[in-house]
Amino acid sequence: MRLAAARGDRRARLLALDALDPTVAGGALVWHALIDAAADIEPLFLGLIDDIPHFAPLPDDCSSIDGRSRSCWAALGLLASDQAALYAGARSLVAWHASQRFCASCGSQTAVAKGGWQRDCPACRAEHFPRTDPVVIMLAEHVAADGEARVLVGHGVGFPPGRMSALAGFVEPGESIEEAVARELFEEAGIRARRVDYVASQPWPFPSSLMIGCIAHAEDDRVTLDTSEVDEAIWVTRGVVSAALAGDGSARFLAPPPIAIARTLLEHWLAG
Amino acid sequence: MRLAAARGDRRARLLALDALDPTVAGGALVWHALIDAAADIEPLFLGLIDDIPHFAPLPDDCSSIDGRSRSCWAALGLLASDQAALYAGARSLVAWHASQRFCASCGSQTAVAKGGWQRDCPACRAEHFPRTDPVVIMLAEHVAADGEARVLVGHGVGFPPGRMSALAGFVEPGESIEEAVARELFEEAGIRARRVDYVASQPWPFPSSLMIGCIAHAEDDRVTLDTSEVDEAIWVTRGVVSAALAGDGSARFLAPPPIAIARTLLEHWLAG
Repeated sequence: MRLAAARGDRRARLLALDALDPTVAGGALVWHALIDAAADIEPLFLGLIDDIPHFAPLPDDCSSIDGRSRSCWAALGLLASDQAALYAGARSLVAWHASQRFCASCGSQTAVAKGGWQRDCPACRAEHFPRTDPVVIMLAEHVAADGEARVLVGHGVGFPPGRMSALAGFVEPGESIEEAVARELFEEAGIRARRVDYVASQPWPFPSSLMIGCIAHAEDDRVTLDTSEVDEAIWVTRGVVSAALAGDGSARFLAPPPIAIARTLLEHWLAG
Repeated sequence: MRLAAARGDRRARLLALDALDPTVAGGALVWHALIDAAADIEPLFLGLIDDIPHFAPLPDDCSSIDGRSRSCWAALGLLASDQAALYAGARSLVAWHASQRFCASCGSQTAVAKGGWQRDCPACRAEHFPRTDPVVIMLAEHVAADGEARVLVGHGVGFPPGRMSALAGFVEPGESIEEAVARELFEEAGIRARRVDYVASQPWPFPSSLMIGCIAHAEDDRVTLDTSEVDEAIWVTRGVVSAALAGDGSARFLAPPPIAIARTLLEHWLAG
């Protein structure tokens, strides 16, 4: 069995992880030898990197792990993008196990299976798989009568003061990406979308979302905010977006950080 | 409370659903009056259609409902596309409740909340939300030395004889859409993708996936199949695809049915 071989490989590495927080050195994740791992962790198989098996540690007592915690936020900004992606996958997997210790079908305790990519129920035989929630995140664009294009950015409830970003929301059962974008824009801002264009996607490990970035063409620029989610929204020109992305202190808003796909959307729109 | 008002609305309608199977008449779903509903069902709120509240029935005893069942397959082909989308959302929601009767965090029984868009745990207070699994489905394209383009279609294990479709697989934690497409193509067919273009998306209610359709540009046309998933794969030209989509009896393969996004991908590629 390939998994047994991977666990027995003396070169195998285990991610240094304190609950969900990584140790970062020189822009890279820190790893230990799997053979030095404590007895009270279950290694979850992340895959082979340069033919060497890599694992993440799931503590036996994982009941206090909260996938929504952002305590690693500062560390994340220090990681190179390939390292951040590797961490995102490991973090989502550990957080999924921590939140899924019981069988949703029958209530029994479940156990890690398939190296961590499954949990099995010994009672009802149900198999459970890691969850990834698709989320749409979008810039509405409107071209004014004078020909100048603007996009809508909003201040989410709980954002730092001045920070503005793209609007976002979970894809619901029965929706396409395009339908989810149109529904969210209408629910959060009263905007009707004419057309939706996909731009890019990104995993987002708080706890385990797939962010799907789009630009939507708005029928008009009248905004009716659902202030329970977004307490301010403004239409901004390319000049304003450019100043915000440059970190200009006098810019009309504070741009999203480099790790956020909202920033990618703003850069894409500015360039396009 | 808006939900109480919706449930009390005498015009409210309840989807005719036998476990997960709809009743179809004249290309449309059949609905009953909510006030005539049996006492042993919980109505799940689907939304307002023309200002009239619409619900789907969750039976008290839902333990035997299996979201993977395809017993409605024939009925689905009779529905107009807006009706199929409405059914897809209702079906996914009912199937999610049936599979999530216990709290994955603590094992206690959970209860329907927020009109069916949440389940709450009375013991540990965890809140659970409907699950939608992002799945990538893709055509690999390769342009031969003579300039002729071909796409790769495969016969999945368990497909009807002759049926060929796009390859597909679940997006894993820590992956973007583009990374998932590249990984799946490599795992299933040994194909390395140079570039991935998003084409379209579609909800797929067996039980609750978001199908994300892409075209990937393959580095070369050497195929190494993982025959546990796909037991045959062939490169096909526009001429072959055109014949298959036309239902030509002598076509090299049987095209996917109109409700499948794989067919949309083939149509898109043929037109592009």
